[in-house]
Amino acid sequence: MKLIKTIAEMQQFSKSASRNGKKVGVVPTMGYLHSGHMSLIDHARKLADVVIVTIFVNPTQFGPNEDLDKYPRDFERDWKSCEQHGVAAVFAPAPEEMYFPDRSTWVVEEKLSQGLCGQSRPTHFRGVTTVVAKLFNATLPDVAVFGQKDAQQAMVIKRMTRDLNFPVEIVVAPIVREADGLAMSSRNKYLSLDERIRALSISASLSDAEARIKAEGRKALGGIAEKIAEKIAASGGKVDYVEVRDADNLEPASESTSCLLIAVAAYFGVTRLIDNILINLN
Amino acid sequence: MKLIKTIAEMQQFSKSASRNGKKVGVVPTMGYLHSGHMSLIDHARKLADVVIVTIFVNPTQFGPNEDLDKYPRDFERDWKSCEQHGVAAVFAPAPEEMYFPDRSTWVVEEKLSQGLCGQSRPTHFRGVTTVVAKLFNATLPDVAVFGQKDAQQAMVIKRMTRDLNFPVEIVVAPIVREADGLAMSSRNKYLSLDERIRALSISASLSDAEARIKAEGRKALGGIAEKIAEKIAASGGKVDYVEVRDADNLEPASESTSCLLIAVAAYFGVTRLIDNILINLN
Repeated sequence: MKLIKTIAEMQQFSKSASRNGKKVGVVPTMGYLHSGHMSLIDHARKLADVVIVTIFVNPTQFGPNEDLDKYPRDFERDWKSCEQHGVAAVFAPAPEEMYFPDRSTWVVEEKLSQGLCGQSRPTHFRGVTTVVAKLFNATLPDVAVFGQKDAQQAMVIKRMTRDLNFPVEIVVAPIVREADGLAMSSRNKYLSLDERIRALSISASLSDAEARIKAEGRKALGGIAEKIAEKIAASGGKVDYVEVRDADNLEPASESTSCLLIAVAAYFGVTRLIDNILINLN
Repeated sequence: MKLIKTIAEMQQFSKSASRNGKKVGVVPTMGYLHSGHMSLIDHARKLADVVIVTIFVNPTQFGPNEDLDKYPRDFERDWKSCEQHGVAAVFAPAPEEMYFPDRSTWVVEEKLSQGLCGQSRPTHFRGVTTVVAKLFNATLPDVAVFGQKDAQQAMVIKRMTRDLNFPVEIVVAPIVREADGLAMSSRNKYLSLDERIRALSISASLSDAEARIKAEGRKALGGIAEKIAEKIAASGGKVDYVEVRDADNLEPASESTSCLLIAVAAYFGVTRLIDNILINLN
């Protein structure tokens, strides 16, 4: 497995793989890899001959009062995990390699990035689309795998990729959960044991909602967001949002919605967690 | 020579050339090709094995009251010119191929695009950076050639390419002028004979400025913009701007400036013309 730290070397590596007829896949991450990331890597291995994992804690997607400085890192463990999962190269650039002091270009998605996480993190998605465009140009992949856990992010990236004609297929892989239902996240590390237990209300309330909708159909949708929010609040969570949206376009769910996205963000202590569920209505 | 109308086919064409070890060059144009464009194509032919010319009148770089509808077009003549200059493929997509009705992504350069043409055309460079990013992803070139005539555009595109890590070398080729000095432009077609003659004051005043600076050195810089503006106004031109800038960073020229850019925009009748000159101060 190759460790690559510069964009020029990364581009050469990928171009050379492509010239040799290999299909190149990339899994962009911020490191501190968990089973969720591993499922993305395994997914990419099925789709591509050569899998690149990028590890970069991207400063531009953190707000001024967010957790950039304390975001967890463990490169040695990440390296071993990648090795064990058949990764061909880890691209781990320094921030100075990724961002010039006088950089002045942003990639901005103006529609799907509004609302949900875009509401409470107003500069977040601009940072995400910019760094993903940069990582695409650095790794030059045929396919990129993202996680459904960041549902809005996946939709924003798909739209950006389509709108700018990046020659990259975007694949979104399902959420991976702990045995008790908590969605895997590098930020779970921040939770105290007590918060960890109370945070289960997020996935539990989403499962409840799914069961109710599957039993009762569309008429269960009335008040469903409020019920989820109540359950999370009752467990001591501070709800940021509970949104019931059309999974195809992120519009509020309507009569014509065939696949539903219920997305949640809530704080337990100072830790902001997100989770979501896709429900087929047909 | 191949005519390509879809992005998918364009990407296939370019990938196939790259796989065969060919260096791919692109010259992005809005068509109605003149000797200036031909010099860019000839330049690209020296740098690349396979030259693609894109012909697309990009709606997003025109303001609401600008000349999108009347912008001159002559595809048959363009086709012949490209054939005569050894172009391998012309990429001429329809607007619907380039822009989805629900597109929502922009590439925005926030620094070099301010002032000069960005002042009077506030949405222009956003359209330029977005379409050039799209054209890069469609044509997947190793090198792209732009004209120095659009000096600010060339700088904005260089910055965008660097900031987003596009694996594309940007080459800027010199201005080509008519025998009497007028900078070549598709928009020269709009000029009446009288306007055409009076518009010579732009290139003439820039040449005068150059001669004075070459003779007197930096002390000639004081009042130089005003002198140029006066000369153009005396010929009946309506000056949009005359700017004396550092050619390396587009900052106002200073003691540390080693290469000067003097850039002009002025209307003759309803036609807005731009021109510029680079002057080495060392």
